[in-house]
Amino acid sequence: MKITGPIVLPAAAVLATNPLLPRQSNVTDYNSAPPNLTTLGNASLFETWRPRAHFLPAYGSIGDPCMHYTDPSTGLFHVGYLHEGASGATTSDLVTYTDLNPNSEPFIRAGGINDHVAVFDGSVIEKGINGTPTLLYTSVNYLPIQWTIRYTKGSETQSLAVATDGGRNFTKLEHGPVIPSPPFAYNVTGFRDPYVFQNPNFDQMLESSNGTWYTIISGGIHGEGPSLFLYRQYEQDPYFENWEFLGQWWSEEANSTWTEAGWAGRWGFNFEVGNLFALDSNGYNAEGEVFVTLGAEWSYKPIVPQVSDNREMLWAAGSHKFVDGNLQFVPSMAGRLDAGRSAYAAAGKHLPASSQAGQSSGAPDRFISYLWLTGDFYGTLDFPTTQQNWSGSLLLPRELSVGYINVVDNALAWEKGSWRVDSQNDNGILTLATLRQQIAREPLAAFQQNATNSTTQSGGSISSSRTFDRSPRSKHYMMTASISFTTRTNDDLKAGFSILSGPNENTNIYYQFSNESLIIDRSNSSAVSATTSGINTDNESGKFRLFDVPTANGTSIETLNLTIVVDGGVVEVHANDRFAVSTWVWSWYEDSTDVGFFVEGGEVEFGEVKIWEGLVDAWPGRNSTS
Amino acid sequence: MKITGPIVLPAAAVLATNPLLPRQSNVTDYNSAPPNLTTLGNASLFETWRPRAHFLPAYGSIGDPCMHYTDPSTGLFHVGYLHEGASGATTSDLVTYTDLNPNSEPFIRAGGINDHVAVFDGSVIEKGINGTPTLLYTSVNYLPIQWTIRYTKGSETQSLAVATDGGRNFTKLEHGPVIPSPPFAYNVTGFRDPYVFQNPNFDQMLESSNGTWYTIISGGIHGEGPSLFLYRQYEQDPYFENWEFLGQWWSEEANSTWTEAGWAGRWGFNFEVGNLFALDSNGYNAEGEVFVTLGAEWSYKPIVPQVSDNREMLWAAGSHKFVDGNLQFVPSMAGRLDAGRSAYAAAGKHLPASSQAGQSSGAPDRFISYLWLTGDFYGTLDFPTTQQNWSGSLLLPRELSVGYINVVDNALAWEKGSWRVDSQNDNGILTLATLRQQIAREPLAAFQQNATNSTTQSGGSISSSRTFDRSPRSKHYMMTASISFTTRTNDDLKAGFSILSGPNENTNIYYQFSNESLIIDRSNSSAVSATTSGINTDNESGKFRLFDVPTANGTSIETLNLTIVVDGGVVEVHANDRFAVSTWVWSWYEDSTDVGFFVEGGEVEFGEVKIWEGLVDAWPGRNSTS
Repeated sequence: MKITGPIVLPAAAVLATNPLLPRQSNVTDYNSAPPNLTTLGNASLFETWRPRAHFLPAYGSIGDPCMHYTDPSTGLFHVGYLHEGASGATTSDLVTYTDLNPNSEPFIRAGGINDHVAVFDGSVIEKGINGTPTLLYTSVNYLPIQWTIRYTKGSETQSLAVATDGGRNFTKLEHGPVIPSPPFAYNVTGFRDPYVFQNPNFDQMLESSNGTWYTIISGGIHGEGPSLFLYRQYEQDPYFENWEFLGQWWSEEANSTWTEAGWAGRWGFNFEVGNLFALDSNGYNAEGEVFVTLGAEWSYKPIVPQVSDNREMLWAAGSHKFVDGNLQFVPSMAGRLDAGRSAYAAAGKHLPASSQAGQSSGAPDRFISYLWLTGDFYGTLDFPTTQQNWSGSLLLPRELSVGYINVVDNALAWEKGSWRVDSQNDNGILTLATLRQQIAREPLAAFQQNATNSTTQSGGSISSSRTFDRSPRSKHYMMTASISFTTRTNDDLKAGFSILSGPNENTNIYYQFSNESLIIDRSNSSAVSATTSGINTDNESGKFRLFDVPTANGTSIETLNLTIVVDGGVVEVHANDRFAVSTWVWSWYEDSTDVGFFVEGGEVEFGEVKIWEGLVDAWPGRNSTS
Repeated sequence: MKITGPIVLPAAAVLATNPLLPRQSNVTDYNSAPPNLTTLGNASLFETWRPRAHFLPAYGSIGDPCMHYTDPSTGLFHVGYLHEGASGATTSDLVTYTDLNPNSEPFIRAGGINDHVAVFDGSVIEKGINGTPTLLYTSVNYLPIQWTIRYTKGSETQSLAVATDGGRNFTKLEHGPVIPSPPFAYNVTGFRDPYVFQNPNFDQMLESSNGTWYTIISGGIHGEGPSLFLYRQYEQDPYFENWEFLGQWWSEEANSTWTEAGWAGRWGFNFEVGNLFALDSNGYNAEGEVFVTLGAEWSYKPIVPQVSDNREMLWAAGSHKFVDGNLQFVPSMAGRLDAGRSAYAAAGKHLPASSQAGQSSGAPDRFISYLWLTGDFYGTLDFPTTQQNWSGSLLLPRELSVGYINVVDNALAWEKGSWRVDSQNDNGILTLATLRQQIAREPLAAFQQNATNSTTQSGGSISSSRTFDRSPRSKHYMMTASISFTTRTNDDLKAGFSILSGPNENTNIYYQFSNESLIIDRSNSSAVSATTSGINTDNESGKFRLFDVPTANGTSIETLNLTIVVDGGVVEVHANDRFAVSTWVWSWYEDSTDVGFFVEGGEVEFGEVKIWEGLVDAWPGRNSTS
């Protein structure tokens, strides 16, 4: 998602052009009720909700992650994001990062001939023109752009830039866009975010030379629906100046959905930020199963031009067929990559085993994806951004792979959902396949190894909420826990944890079978919401199924395994390596640090809960005051 | 032709951005040998060679004529030309003109999102968007562009602008180019100068709706040859935002020619300024025979990148065939629209009978074309432009139609040339068809009616050159004459006229059968050439055939009918309504005004010669000092 319409971010706009604001009147009292935060001085809230272990610029707003790549000459992984153009940082371990430029200044800025008004997402061919990392990005010359309005011809084109100075700058090539328009006479809703990839199966199916580069471009067609447009590097032109349109690789009917049951949100009207890659059970494998992550834009009725916009961060996997000579994708399963409504615009990249991170951890070829967590709900919240002097963050990097689960062969497994039946065994057991997603192994390990304080809370059968014996002293920690349910038919039952809680505030994270959802109840999460606009406390909710699984002596409901990361205002909840819901919790009080069991309407069995406090400073090279 | 390469015009570049320079030291003595003109003051030569009856801006350089149209709301004909972008003037009679803006300021300038560096030629849909005159023009974002070098992707695109304020401004539409690139994977040599037209035969052949707009775009393909690309308004979109590529309507092999005999120059490597229209014997007729005027770029060997460039101003007529489903043009005759090497970039337009000019003169629907006469040979001459403070002119408007000639059925008629055999009669007579071109009827009449001094010189058999009894007193006049030849086998014979002659200078215009050419011998035309660089005195030469024609008592050689216009430095020579050669003659001396018979190597019969002196001030509204 880019700021593509008249929806403006007054504060963020200031941030986008100003350097780090001087901290003013930093005497905020977190032990009494908050004032209206907009009365506070510039940057006075800089530390209040700032995450420590997450990826975000030194100051200012972060937009979509994009343009990641491993520099073949250094093995460093470059993580990019929209920020005054696009900026980035390098990492050798996915734990700590080094800004490419001081103050997170961008490696590419808008304002060239092809991109007067904006640089939108792009992706990098690692060994591109003259063997140099080469960026294919959306160059924007006209705004507004939104699927709800008539498309301005030529507003989005795809252009090239090449890395100089180790990627600290990407220099735009002195020629026009290499994809100068959508396909002829396509009345598009959007046409952006080119995602380049190589794929030997595509080469074979499309009779391309080995190693041909492809790109998908995300968008849609007015009156038809969202779409991913497929292009191929033409005749292996070493300058990547010509891309051949190969049809709509994937299109869905407007306002349709994978399933109305809600396993995969809505396809909506326009796709954005599509990534196309292939996975196996170990991670990235170009010969593996084809997956897509994508953002979908839609609206409740009535659709209000330039205003209506709901977003879904989805994934899908599937197979191919040829229709009228065009290669088309047929989804076999689809789901939400993150159920948090502020989590969007995931951008991933193949991280090879040969990268520095891969060599250090011994990880195989991986596909690493970063999601954006917007800090002001896509510019619609009047958040006190000037006081905070930053907005938004990326979520922790995730490793994606194909996950398999053995489940009982029953209706729960056969429903059309965010999984597919991979195989049917003789003994009444099904193997389901789905997208496995886990916090990348390095930060997961680092949070444990570097904990300044780690505690264990024993579990047991619990039927009422209570605070842990020892809670964290800060708002930066990771916890792991498990919950076993004995029945799925108790609609009153809610079980999980309270976090960031105290006498004045609390946030509850729980699962309930009534709608098979994992919920983050933020309704009492922030005292600030009473004094200051832009502090959203709506609940987050994501549909997640616990299957029936075989056990030694029969069957049981699959255990809910949670990994929760609290990092300043960022809360990530991961479940069973296949579900995530992330959000902001803007707790105010210094004593809102309690963690506890949360149970209502029944009894569940909690496993041991572990808490690792402290996390890791992801930006050791920055001149931090925290 | 546009300044598309590193060939720069130091002086013209100054002119392009500076206002009218103050006249300095205007004490030039035209009665003695000229100094090096570059030593003279700014604008001191403003009047020296300035034409009076021709079309040129108030000051500064003129480039390609283009963007002409009749405003449906006024009936005025708008004549456009490249000048600091593009500028224009209106006319109700093709004789006098009124600048659209003071000081010939442009109605469109480069510098927008689509045209950072230049506005190239375009053409106008009279009732375009919202019924307003709508310009489709080449928007340029990158230079250099030349057929001798690798094409810079995206350098030339086609964009829209709409007339405001009666055409005094054309406002660029707030969107990208409507033809944002050459056809996919075409490695073009050029892609510019869109020429819009309607044609009912095209509608029928291409199964388009009645009244569909088409455009040709001129260019070529590296390694293949020059080409005209055909596009069609897509689905009659009232915003003209989509144009459907219908193939290469006309392409020729690189460096080929209609005939090596020289009747139609060379097709070269790249086409420019292509116009497509239909004519009959009366003038414009959309249902008539299809004609093209076009510029062709080529080179002698070796081709030097960014330097080599010769140009031809050609015309062709022909028929259609379908090849692989694409409509293709098949020339049946082709020739030079003007043989002068400085005459180029013709731009014409349908001038309806209902226009003010048409109604006043009673002329039918016409096709009126203006050629450019470059003042510094496409920027390659180091002409003292600062001293002149202007550069280049348009030639007088020409009416184009289909011309027919009855000739003797012999080899002269059957040669492949700038004519075709239209019909073969029983009596040994052939009717040839060709492009008829005449100076537009209104200026032709006005020059006679408004003459301040008119003289008649009787003719007769003449075998040696001699000055007329009475010559003009100025360098602004029109003369008509005829010459009859009795033999075509005398290779020594040259017959014609000397003009702009006197004790120190002379220019000879003559026909010779040795190479069937009409020649302007400029070798002694300018005393300035001895003192100042950039005063080109090379001969001009154009191949022109006098056929054998039937007479009452047998056959004879067709009479050569000449119309010569001398207007300051501009000399136009028109022959037999089907040939023209135009050039600059930079005579210096005040007494170089003599006109005379020019005959060498034999005897010919001259008819009566008429001279109308004075011409007409084409710019009565300008604050002129002449």
